[in-house]
Amino acid sequence: MNESSLQERFAPLSRCFGCGPANAAGLRLRSFVQGDALVATWRPADHHQAFPGMLNGGIIGTLLDCHGNWAAAWHLMNRDGLAQPLCTVTADYAVKLLRPTPLGEPVELVARIVSSAADRAVVEAELSAAGKPRATCRGTFVAVRPGHPAYHQWQPA
Amino acid sequence: MNESSLQERFAPLSRCFGCGPANAAGLRLRSFVQGDALVATWRPADHHQAFPGMLNGGIIGTLLDCHGNWAAAWHLMNRDGLAQPLCTVTADYAVKLLRPTPLGEPVELVARIVSSAADRAVVEAELSAAGKPRATCRGTFVAVRPGHPAYHQWQPA
Repeated sequence: MNESSLQERFAPLSRCFGCGPANAAGLRLRSFVQGDALVATWRPADHHQAFPGMLNGGIIGTLLDCHGNWAAAWHLMNRDGLAQPLCTVTADYAVKLLRPTPLGEPVELVARIVSSAADRAVVEAELSAAGKPRATCRGTFVAVRPGHPAYHQWQPA
Repeated sequence: MNESSLQERFAPLSRCFGCGPANAAGLRLRSFVQGDALVATWRPADHHQAFPGMLNGGIIGTLLDCHGNWAAAWHLMNRDGLAQPLCTVTADYAVKLLRPTPLGEPVELVARIVSSAADRAVVEAELSAAGKPRATCRGTFVAVRPGHPAYHQWQPA
């Protein structure tokens, strides 16, 4: 069913640091649709630490940003009956770090749409690990038009 | 004068992904005091992209988070007349992306203290490149006590 992530389906050549399947030095986040949510599991490497044993907050934000962006892209695509996601970019994202995130455990991400307008969606996401919420994020993601530097840069064709 | 960054002076063994001098796979941000501000210049690598030619927003947040944290640590240290910075961790950070950030240019960071309480500081920071502001960030950074997992983990001794 969910063998192929949204990134692999729609942007296999992307080298985005956070979620590009083709970036060997990136985080290669893989996001999957699950009901009304977008979910992901990701395993930190040692060099993603803030200090020994704990995951860096910037990496946490990177995961939540990319995962939220894909939640928005998926939502807008389905809402508008499109065959491909629109090119969405992040306008803002705000991260709250609730407690330290262990480096040795996989992290779980869940994102849901809060609201959407014609060209954008607001997404709330949570990152948990070892059974506890560790961070939350609220972000705004905007579909860009032809002419924007991001337009279709991350899509296969 | 400013030959040694705050990270090199106070946390040379840190392997923090964003700013640890000892993390060869990290961003190795180097922050310098300049009057009432903390400044840094950082050059992106190709694998830090969002899409070809543009810097990833998660990397931008990571830089602003670490730079803001050091601004807070430096401020609290001087305010309280300490010889070493306190161990500060990020409670929250909120990033606004104003326009795309080019991948081929160095980015400039400036952070300033907005307010501080006994154990924390609020910091505003801006990232610019090629002469234009590209992103802003407001974060809250909190000094942790003995017993917290971060306590003295990133300091040399």
